[in-house]
Amino acid sequence: MTIRVGVIGTGNIGTSHARDLAARVAGASVTALYDFDTGRAAELAAELGAAAMPGYQELISSPDVDAVLIASPDQFHAEQALACLAAGKPTMCEKPLAPVEEDARAVVEAEVALGRRLIMMGFMRRFDPGYLELKEQFGPDGIGDPLIVRNAHRNEIAPYGLDSALSITNAAIHEIDINRWLTDDEYAWVQVITGRSGPLTPEGQHDPLFLLLQTTRGTIVEVEMFVQSQIGYEVTCDVTGGLGIANMTDGRYVSTAAARRRGHSLPPQWLGRFRDAYRLQLQGWIGSLLSGGDLPGASAWDGYVGAMTANRAVESLRTGERVPVVLPDRPALYS
Amino acid sequence: MTIRVGVIGTGNIGTSHARDLAARVAGASVTALYDFDTGRAAELAAELGAAAMPGYQELISSPDVDAVLIASPDQFHAEQALACLAAGKPTMCEKPLAPVEEDARAVVEAEVALGRRLIMMGFMRRFDPGYLELKEQFGPDGIGDPLIVRNAHRNEIAPYGLDSALSITNAAIHEIDINRWLTDDEYAWVQVITGRSGPLTPEGQHDPLFLLLQTTRGTIVEVEMFVQSQIGYEVTCDVTGGLGIANMTDGRYVSTAAARRRGHSLPPQWLGRFRDAYRLQLQGWIGSLLSGGDLPGASAWDGYVGAMTANRAVESLRTGERVPVVLPDRPALYS
Amino acid sequence: MTIRVGVIGTGNIGTSHARDLAARVAGASVTALYDFDTGRAAELAAELGAAAMPGYQELISSPDVDAVLIASPDQFHAEQALACLAAGKPTMCEKPLAPVEEDARAVVEAEVALGRRLIMMGFMRRFDPGYLELKEQFGPDGIGDPLIVRNAHRNEIAPYGLDSALSITNAAIHEIDINRWLTDDEYAWVQVITGRSGPLTPEGQHDPLFLLLQTTRGTIVEVEMFVQSQIGYEVTCDVTGGLGIANMTDGRYVSTAAARRRGHSLPPQWLGRFRDAYRLQLQGWIGSLLSGGDLPGASAWDGYVGAMTANRAVESLRTGERVPVVLPDRPALYS
Amino acid sequence: MTIRVGVIGTGNIGTSHARDLAARVAGASVTALYDFDTGRAAELAAELGAAAMPGYQELISSPDVDAVLIASPDQFHAEQALACLAAGKPTMCEKPLAPVEEDARAVVEAEVALGRRLIMMGFMRRFDPGYLELKEQFGPDGIGDPLIVRNAHRNEIAPYGLDSALSITNAAIHEIDINRWLTDDEYAWVQVITGRSGPLTPEGQHDPLFLLLQTTRGTIVEVEMFVQSQIGYEVTCDVTGGLGIANMTDGRYVSTAAARRRGHSLPPQWLGRFRDAYRLQLQGWIGSLLSGGDLPGASAWDGYVGAMTANRAVESLRTGERVPVVLPDRPALYS
Repeated sequence: MTIRVGVIGTGNIGTSHARDLAARVAGASVTALYDFDTGRAAELAAELGAAAMPGYQELISSPDVDAVLIASPDQFHAEQALACLAAGKPTMCEKPLAPVEEDARAVVEAEVALGRRLIMMGFMRRFDPGYLELKEQFGPDGIGDPLIVRNAHRNEIAPYGLDSALSITNAAIHEIDINRWLTDDEYAWVQVITGRSGPLTPEGQHDPLFLLLQTTRGTIVEVEMFVQSQIGYEVTCDVTGGLGIANMTDGRYVSTAAARRRGHSLPPQWLGRFRDAYRLQLQGWIGSLLSGGDLPGASAWDGYVGAMTANRAVESLRTGERVPVVLPDRPALYS
Repeated sequence: MTIRVGVIGTGNIGTSHARDLAARVAGASVTALYDFDTGRAAELAAELGAAAMPGYQELISSPDVDAVLIASPDQFHAEQALACLAAGKPTMCEKPLAPVEEDARAVVEAEVALGRRLIMMGFMRRFDPGYLELKEQFGPDGIGDPLIVRNAHRNEIAPYGLDSALSITNAAIHEIDINRWLTDDEYAWVQVITGRSGPLTPEGQHDPLFLLLQTTRGTIVEVEMFVQSQIGYEVTCDVTGGLGIANMTDGRYVSTAAARRRGHSLPPQWLGRFRDAYRLQLQGWIGSLLSGGDLPGASAWDGYVGAMTANRAVESLRTGERVPVVLPDRPALYS
Repeated sequence: MTIRVGVIGTGNIGTSHARDLAARVAGASVTALYDFDTGRAAELAAELGAAAMPGYQELISSPDVDAVLIASPDQFHAEQALACLAAGKPTMCEKPLAPVEEDARAVVEAEVALGRRLIMMGFMRRFDPGYLELKEQFGPDGIGDPLIVRNAHRNEIAPYGLDSALSITNAAIHEIDINRWLTDDEYAWVQVITGRSGPLTPEGQHDPLFLLLQTTRGTIVEVEMFVQSQIGYEVTCDVTGGLGIANMTDGRYVSTAAARRRGHSLPPQWLGRFRDAYRLQLQGWIGSLLSGGDLPGASAWDGYVGAMTANRAVESLRTGERVPVVLPDRPALYS
Repeated sequence: MTIRVGVIGTGNIGTSHARDLAARVAGASVTALYDFDTGRAAELAAELGAAAMPGYQELISSPDVDAVLIASPDQFHAEQALACLAAGKPTMCEKPLAPVEEDARAVVEAEVALGRRLIMMGFMRRFDPGYLELKEQFGPDGIGDPLIVRNAHRNEIAPYGLDSALSITNAAIHEIDINRWLTDDEYAWVQVITGRSGPLTPEGQHDPLFLLLQTTRGTIVEVEMFVQSQIGYEVTCDVTGGLGIANMTDGRYVSTAAARRRGHSLPPQWLGRFRDAYRLQLQGWIGSLLSGGDLPGASAWDGYVGAMTANRAVESLRTGERVPVVLPDRPALYS
């Protein structure tokens, strides 16, 4: 059996997903594509033997589409997710669920009203071999409970200019999500501390940002978010546990020595680090659809909590103060 | 389109391959299984929704089988590969092609007579992200040409007792193959040097073995083959190039500190290191069958050269002398 | 020429210093020792061929003592340093200068009144090859200016029980000093955040502690101080600079693989990490006395600033709030 | 008490030793210097407050010289060592003891005739923290007995042109010595294998060289000697033991990330790696002279065995064959 997927959005990440689904994910095929740039969609459709659709609604309602992958620009995610819910089709939605918190909330409410989970959020780090290996170290036979988690998330360069709020809602949102997942806990507060900035930072902006969060059980989570680090792409996570320490770096196989340097190269951007996480996420999603099992990734609720926490962090960026993170009751659907 | 695969042999590795084909490889399904242990085959067939076949001939000739994967005990590989060639079906054959050199040669000759390549050998290291990253370092923009290659291949324990000749033909054959691939070169001679053995080595055997080879262009290849190292499973490869050095280790993401030790765990056996290489090999094979492209892995010729070189190493193990590696002319089919 | 040193305090660290001075530091000899435990002092005196003195005053005023090393219990440091100043003898004083801030201030004032620098503080990390290598990376040809500095300081076990305030004034004071030195900057504020504690932490105490500081130029400094980590002794320092990242670990030469683990051992306590820093500090001190050059280590002023900042951190530990660090004007003697 | 040292030879290494003795070694002073370049010697003498001597004989016989350090060009070592023996003065002699084997033998015989050990050879790696840490791993509580030892010794560039025989007698002689010390064993044979050379290798020479040795207890020792590697200076040593593996690298504290590379710098030459080993060797030597204890480093016998084994390796370089290493009986003086 094959899950026939329709992909909305054929930019970088949508194209990458579509090609993975077509050639590297068992049990999937790509049957329909839509992009507001119709030429781009048609080209990929020809490459993959899929149909180019005139609109996302047509794609969602097509009888040749069993499941939908949303990889459109962020501001369309919520609207398209709602349409998928209305059509009753399983959906994988790229992060964020919505830039506007209320929109994310509306998707959650629609799914709750529907009474079953159809949406999986594309927080691919939950499928990354590095983070999985890290979380496996937790517990009484390993490093104990996580007490302090220190994250660094470094981009080489911000492609569309630097906006500190966007550094949080678009980039640090990965840390916001993955640390909830790592700690199995909720945040109590968040604080953004600004300081000395890197040389490429425009007036009025801050880079790197230093985010500090604390969970309800007291775990301290710290994030260095540096979007114009100039070093290449690097993500690290260091966990101090009650019984030991665990440090995640970039999982390289090869070190070289040449010209008085020993070490390894850093990739220019995130696909060089998380390429396999994306594939594993898609395989996990398709596998769950084939087996009828639980969705293995982040839920719409997780998407909402991420968006909401990111907004609290932006508030702290503006005021410099600690901002409480207050969650509404978690609907039973997500327990 | 889907390639329907029949799997001969449902021991550890055959079962692993069948499950990969069913759940983790795009474009494949498993339709038929055979094992001399018919109960074991039936159980896996039920799990995967495939047919359990009464014999390997029936599997090969089944109209529901587009391609065959041979994972039976080593001594049956050549006979089954010949049957696949006779049936004109694409085949992936686990290494070695045959324990007896002449049998491996016969498969090559049958394929040459057929006039087209149907057989891909299961030397999975050629698909391993570590070795691929290593080979990418070669060349004028990297470490230059390989001058010296040092390999270590360590098993924790030899499951069926230790036999030094088997350490070569069954285990070090991986290094024999991967160093030909790394250097794009052929061996000129091989010498096995024995010395001080580990504490678990029975009288009359040697462990570790030290294999020394030189290629026709002069690259020195050295292999430490230690089947009862007791340390866990570890494979390393260090290349001295004309412009730099490249070292392959085990690609771990996480280091931990606890109880006065910092570092990472070693897996008990090879699947802990090469799990992904197996999947990528299967995906590469299936992808080439779907696209009609060239087989991406080792050929029957490579299988023959590996088996033959291993036999020369065994000869050196017995005599202590250097043994030339003399290849017959490479058939045009493999150029 | 030889500097004849008198050592006050022959506990662990005093004994270590005395033996270093006698056998591993060029240009030094140990001529006098004092300890309140007179038997202990006599034993070491016999070993080193030095005189055991009846009191620290006698030691300081002895004509056979050119310079004094204070390694007595913390509460005596200030009083003995004042006596050394009164005697006009060069003095190396173990950290802290005094547990009570006003006492530290009094030493500074006495030295200022004297009008020349005689006191060097024993902040040995300033002589550690690791920290020196780290600081060398700073600047326009390296990683740029330090923007964020993250420190971890882990002890295996607190020998005399755990007291969170003492974790700051006695242990984290090393990070308070070394980060001033690394950044060539002064602190603007400090905040201590408590959270989830390790399993050995008694009721009412916190371990690990998370210290956050910001310098006047905006560098964010973060310290994990974990005195009962159970892992062994480990100190790390990670610096995010405007042009690159630098990470200091423990400088080990050897990695081992055995019993399914690869890595290296951690020492039980700090001498296993900073043994050489202590020797280099003594050599630097003696060398400066011989040459008449500037004292190469931390000054009494640095000792005062460290003690004062530590006290502000303790204040924050109690209140949970940010506490400003307000320095009096730096006397010209220390500019 | 102070050992007054006279230094013969004030080139790079002699100057380094003299400065160490004057400023970084406890219990030593430099009182006399000699160099055939009298201006160079006079300059250093002025710097260190020592006397510049008109000849090495005058230096050796000077009443102001308690011990002699020989750091002259290689061809003078034996003659000067004999003169020191004749004068009955403790001597540290830079490696090699002599380029000509018979000359080295003559020094041993003279020392045996004298009946007491006065000469310590400057094989500084025996004092290197890395090699010491490596050897500590051996034994039943560690990695067991050494079965295979793999060494790499890489220079950036050969300063005076490349001569393969000199690569052995001058550079690989370090590995010849240190592996005897590591294994506490003697060599049974040596073989040099040549192959593909690096791009800077002149016609008729070979670089890298691959030395293979086996000890009398069967340990296999392998050396990659690459004098024009272009990468910088790097020395590694990997030991496969019966119970585990130990790998020595370069003991760096700091890793950096910048410009898409993560790692650390390599020093241009050996002082960047072995600076501390030289100091520790001098301290060990002076300490033993002060205490009257055994010389802690390599003996004249070790110097002879090194020179002799290097010559056997050169013989193998010429013939391509294995050459036995046959030691004369070890004089009782060195047991």
